[in-house]
Amino acid sequence: MPGNHFGQAFRISTFGESHGPALGVVIDGCPPGLTIDADFIAAEMARRRPGQSALVTQRKEGDAVEILSGVFEGRSTGTPIGMLIRNADQRSKDYGHIARSYRPSHADFTYQVKYGIRDYRGGGRSSARETAARVAAGAVAKLLLAQYGIHARAWVSQVGEIVLDRPYAELDLDGVDAHPTRCPDPATAERMETLIRAVRKDGDTIGGVVSAVVQGMPPGLGEPVFDKLHADLAKAMMGINASRGFEYGSGFAAAAMRGSAHNDAFAMQDNNVVTTSNHSGGIQGGISNGMDIPFRVAFKPVATIVAEQDSVDQDGNAVTVSGKGRHDPCVLPRAVPIVEAMAALVLADHLLRYRAQGHYDGTSEEVQSDGVSSGPPQKPTE
Amino acid sequence: MPGNHFGQAFRISTFGESHGPALGVVIDGCPPGLTIDADFIAAEMARRRPGQSALVTQRKEGDAVEILSGVFEGRSTGTPIGMLIRNADQRSKDYGHIARSYRPSHADFTYQVKYGIRDYRGGGRSSARETAARVAAGAVAKLLLAQYGIHARAWVSQVGEIVLDRPYAELDLDGVDAHPTRCPDPATAERMETLIRAVRKDGDTIGGVVSAVVQGMPPGLGEPVFDKLHADLAKAMMGINASRGFEYGSGFAAAAMRGSAHNDAFAMQDNNVVTTSNHSGGIQGGISNGMDIPFRVAFKPVATIVAEQDSVDQDGNAVTVSGKGRHDPCVLPRAVPIVEAMAALVLADHLLRYRAQGHYDGTSEEVQSDGVSSGPPQKPTE
Amino acid sequence: MPGNHFGQAFRISTFGESHGPALGVVIDGCPPGLTIDADFIAAEMARRRPGQSALVTQRKEGDAVEILSGVFEGRSTGTPIGMLIRNADQRSKDYGHIARSYRPSHADFTYQVKYGIRDYRGGGRSSARETAARVAAGAVAKLLLAQYGIHARAWVSQVGEIVLDRPYAELDLDGVDAHPTRCPDPATAERMETLIRAVRKDGDTIGGVVSAVVQGMPPGLGEPVFDKLHADLAKAMMGINASRGFEYGSGFAAAAMRGSAHNDAFAMQDNNVVTTSNHSGGIQGGISNGMDIPFRVAFKPVATIVAEQDSVDQDGNAVTVSGKGRHDPCVLPRAVPIVEAMAALVLADHLLRYRAQGHYDGTSEEVQSDGVSSGPPQKPTE
Amino acid sequence: MPGNHFGQAFRISTFGESHGPALGVVIDGCPPGLTIDADFIAAEMARRRPGQSALVTQRKEGDAVEILSGVFEGRSTGTPIGMLIRNADQRSKDYGHIARSYRPSHADFTYQVKYGIRDYRGGGRSSARETAARVAAGAVAKLLLAQYGIHARAWVSQVGEIVLDRPYAELDLDGVDAHPTRCPDPATAERMETLIRAVRKDGDTIGGVVSAVVQGMPPGLGEPVFDKLHADLAKAMMGINASRGFEYGSGFAAAAMRGSAHNDAFAMQDNNVVTTSNHSGGIQGGISNGMDIPFRVAFKPVATIVAEQDSVDQDGNAVTVSGKGRHDPCVLPRAVPIVEAMAALVLADHLLRYRAQGHYDGTSEEVQSDGVSSGPPQKPTE
Repeated sequence: MPGNHFGQAFRISTFGESHGPALGVVIDGCPPGLTIDADFIAAEMARRRPGQSALVTQRKEGDAVEILSGVFEGRSTGTPIGMLIRNADQRSKDYGHIARSYRPSHADFTYQVKYGIRDYRGGGRSSARETAARVAAGAVAKLLLAQYGIHARAWVSQVGEIVLDRPYAELDLDGVDAHPTRCPDPATAERMETLIRAVRKDGDTIGGVVSAVVQGMPPGLGEPVFDKLHADLAKAMMGINASRGFEYGSGFAAAAMRGSAHNDAFAMQDNNVVTTSNHSGGIQGGISNGMDIPFRVAFKPVATIVAEQDSVDQDGNAVTVSGKGRHDPCVLPRAVPIVEAMAALVLADHLLRYRAQGHYDGTSEEVQSDGVSSGPPQKPTE
Repeated sequence: MPGNHFGQAFRISTFGESHGPALGVVIDGCPPGLTIDADFIAAEMARRRPGQSALVTQRKEGDAVEILSGVFEGRSTGTPIGMLIRNADQRSKDYGHIARSYRPSHADFTYQVKYGIRDYRGGGRSSARETAARVAAGAVAKLLLAQYGIHARAWVSQVGEIVLDRPYAELDLDGVDAHPTRCPDPATAERMETLIRAVRKDGDTIGGVVSAVVQGMPPGLGEPVFDKLHADLAKAMMGINASRGFEYGSGFAAAAMRGSAHNDAFAMQDNNVVTTSNHSGGIQGGISNGMDIPFRVAFKPVATIVAEQDSVDQDGNAVTVSGKGRHDPCVLPRAVPIVEAMAALVLADHLLRYRAQGHYDGTSEEVQSDGVSSGPPQKPTE
Repeated sequence: MPGNHFGQAFRISTFGESHGPALGVVIDGCPPGLTIDADFIAAEMARRRPGQSALVTQRKEGDAVEILSGVFEGRSTGTPIGMLIRNADQRSKDYGHIARSYRPSHADFTYQVKYGIRDYRGGGRSSARETAARVAAGAVAKLLLAQYGIHARAWVSQVGEIVLDRPYAELDLDGVDAHPTRCPDPATAERMETLIRAVRKDGDTIGGVVSAVVQGMPPGLGEPVFDKLHADLAKAMMGINASRGFEYGSGFAAAAMRGSAHNDAFAMQDNNVVTTSNHSGGIQGGISNGMDIPFRVAFKPVATIVAEQDSVDQDGNAVTVSGKGRHDPCVLPRAVPIVEAMAALVLADHLLRYRAQGHYDGTSEEVQSDGVSSGPPQKPTE
Repeated sequence: MPGNHFGQAFRISTFGESHGPALGVVIDGCPPGLTIDADFIAAEMARRRPGQSALVTQRKEGDAVEILSGVFEGRSTGTPIGMLIRNADQRSKDYGHIARSYRPSHADFTYQVKYGIRDYRGGGRSSARETAARVAAGAVAKLLLAQYGIHARAWVSQVGEIVLDRPYAELDLDGVDAHPTRCPDPATAERMETLIRAVRKDGDTIGGVVSAVVQGMPPGLGEPVFDKLHADLAKAMMGINASRGFEYGSGFAAAAMRGSAHNDAFAMQDNNVVTTSNHSGGIQGGISNGMDIPFRVAFKPVATIVAEQDSVDQDGNAVTVSGKGRHDPCVLPRAVPIVEAMAALVLADHLLRYRAQGHYDGTSEEVQSDGVSSGPPQKPTE
């Protein structure tokens, strides 16, 4: 019922507030025997961390992840992996002015209505700082997916009106982090950086779009009705702070297309079934078909701005509010690892759900039982 | 794990194939005492039914709903409501040609890979016929929401390149069904109809956009992290056959905006907190703020077309496939009641989840216990 | 939230009232490719059916199961299996006398308090007739388990003070149905039948115990903390109408034992790890160890008796109530297939959950990927 | 799918191993505004803590609970409550001897089979140390239940063959902690203590029974089919380490009873419906009827004993194993707070689930909407 857990088979529960003692996550369902590379987790955290460049908030957090359980001698044991991230650089006194006032386009008012009480410091749990726990969990999901050759990569494709309009096949998706904007086209990246600096100078903020693609997908992942693979991706992306829209494959452009132009023909390639175009975005009937899964997520501009804005307080009095605390002029560069983390969590979950399903074997006419093998020396009765 | 159920507190499980004996749904969690208006359910079914106009598939289905349980003397009892819709006009022999071939941009291939077996007749469970069960359940959700003054209304706002570009406040949202296109602007509706007729004549299909708005929302619905109200709406909409994109509030347009233009100022109106603009789309931090919730869903063109298309069969042989059976040239008019049904299911679920939460009472400083009252004559120990 | 579904990976949702049009169940998660033997399902239904012997209620129900979906050409397709059981012999007029009165030790009062409305005819959903849907679903679970050599068998081991006190290894568990009491020891069965006939003649009812054993278990099923295999069995059994207690392995007798006597030594047998005694009941740390799983379920006497009893009505007036309608003097014989069905549902669920987990391979030091294989001709990228 | 979370509306996720850095729990769904009494939580932890008396293990753990989130200025905020308990007195070197050997009646073998890897130190996650996290979460559940006057109290009613045979109404249930055995009958407690000391001297262990009763119950809690209140209690209790049986109300004794003796007559008392006996154990049809809920849980003797025992190792070699490390001769005294904690978690969950249900109001003929009220100054549209 409450909404702080995600996934069914690879399931996470997160906790923590922006200015509380710590954030954390419990992963329940990580398969045993997986090498848990702490350096990789740290590197993923560094990609999301505040203060990593001049383009983002200057709050200083090392975001070190302490693994509390579920890992023994470097490998997952199949029991829950608890991970803890201490908050270090809280400056809660910056937030006294909003203890009873509602910041425009923040969650102050809705939390107050829903709960009757709120931790107003830094937005409490509504802060994007909460996503640190997701990135930690997503790093473990990425380690699992890498065993299967599955990779989710994201990049910044729009900031304000500056749009990167090249197909992803032409981009260096492994070099996304080379520029602080995380736009993999150098010329566009420069223009985006100039815009973000100008917006910051104005005390303003700006929106944008993160594009992503999942590659190396096996076919068969996703459930056909409500838990379509793209439906779960949509939920995952729309659950990221400040997101406003999601599209995959042909996206909103499909609305203007005819079926004769949109349909993807099947063909054989290296003994595999492939499609010769990919308007389907690698998913048909909610189930992956083995092609790439491209998708896009729109983000609104960050709500905290320097200018004075009209609002009301808890007693219904008119007030004005202006941004204090440390904030991002543009959330897009830091959204990239979060989009990847959420995509990895969805894919890891569906990977394990697919394992549970069991499957028909074309040759033996029987349900296969390979999912129930066991460690030595015991053999199951099969 | 499997994906044929939806919701947590107002939970549905659906079943049924396009050419099987019946479709059905079980609603588990409908509050007791609700008047179940069978005529209203039938009217909702009629809005989705095939053959309702010349613009849609001519399959003939009465789509009568038999209520099997959970209703006594016209009212819900709190036990599961089972609903059954018999299939009548299956013409399964139309589908022999795809028993082993994969129709382009259909789910034939992915079902075969995932399950190793498939009911190929009419697409089996991947057929949009499956949505009949959702509309039946959604009708019950609508009856519940109406008790709270909450209404979800949808309409067709784009077919191909024909776009309805008027704010919803100017439209007659209660008169959407007046035109078979379900576009509430008569002039645009005429142009859309002309286009759909032309597309059908070409043996082709066309995509479009359904717009929707939830009105009468109380504030406080939605869970703040993963189960944000708009995240659950996104999942619900992306779970509808052929959808390709979702946006709410300012949507993808937010990417080009600055915070100073995007932020919604708070103000008092009739002793209520309101926002003077609504780029937030009625949701802040994942929780409703009491304003309208506008959103849009993009649909791709239907995959079944008359022209011959290249494909492969189960053995990897090259084949050609062309559309037989009866299909919609444009799914948009029939998508309107489905969008409304899925929105109603999300809202009903969050309404009950909010009830479970309990809430702080501003005056008494204690958790309220009103959720645990009971029928006469017994009074709980409180 | 509502409680009419059971299981996570092999998940069922049930619906239906004793005197409504029908009962039913949706199985979501049955693996594809399983041969669905309709005769076997019918035979299981016949074991639970009323009127099968002189020892049970004489209500006449054929309990024919109509399969509505999820099966194609005799095999499961991986989509939900909907099953319908029409009610035939309702005599609802028998129940007018309890429309406003609370029958002692029935659920009339608690339903009224909880829901404020109730379908009083035959107890509505609180009737054991609801278990017909469980037996139908359990039959499918049994078909799946049989593929793995797993079998759950139950029998009547106590009626009133008549106790069958022989170890199950000495009993003919395949011949349980030979006697209408379902006690596999002929002499004890005769004594039980005599007692039940006497109790019926008195217009009274009598309790008892069903014993059961799961055989052919592979090791590794069950989750170690909350969802221990025996915890899920306990919940399943205590969810059957009229059950009052559950024990497994050494059971309540363990309370009087010392560790030195209770511990089960490990040994090798046919290259398998076995235990030389089985006080652990085949489960250690919540996980199956490959040995048999014996358990017992206590049932109270049926509440409906002929004698007049004191009670109150909905307005708080003192009333007397006496049993009308058709009821079982002893629920035990019919409880046997229900206990087996619920056990099968738990085991099928944990079988699939174990598949999802993935597992460490003792030789390759890597997580295995065999769960993500696919049908021909496509091969996943692994 | 994995089993380390419990509850639906008041939901916990636990993590941690016996000899890892820490144990912890996340509570998702605690209603906002609840005063979180840290001293009460600490007192509950002290009741479960090792080393509290000469009768239990002498491992030294302060079991201090650090609250990481979800509490602001002493009250719950409605966001997840993260709680951390650091391990202090690990002596992992005590466990080298079982790195590859299977201790009889422990979970060493089953973990190895299931996961192919295990943290053998102190039993890893299979250790009863894991229950510290449950007691911390249970303490919060108790604080919530106390707002409604609901209390779950447990005590030791059997150790070995020493049985406390007095009705609970005669016992001082508030004075259970007065004796280190937690048996509230002083004479029986003395005999139990003498037995436990003798067993310990023998290097052996002994089983027993914990009895419990829930008092102050409102009617209406529990879901009628699978999630019956007693079914969820059974699962909760059988999920505690070393439990072997569960019974409630008349329990196994009901098997020998006749309906005429077992039925509980209804009567009015102080304008409330009550039953004049309580064989139903306060639950009818799975739903609480407002009477006390008495239940009993059987525990086997602890598996770790000093004597040498036969076993095998991971390679299938015969070995002998004898108990090292620090262990309890009798788990019963420390099981008391765990039984109470698990009962509280079940009740808190069903309390919130009942709130979500909504309910019929006998006077207004409409579903009530009181669950969707909101904090000032906003009023929902109702």
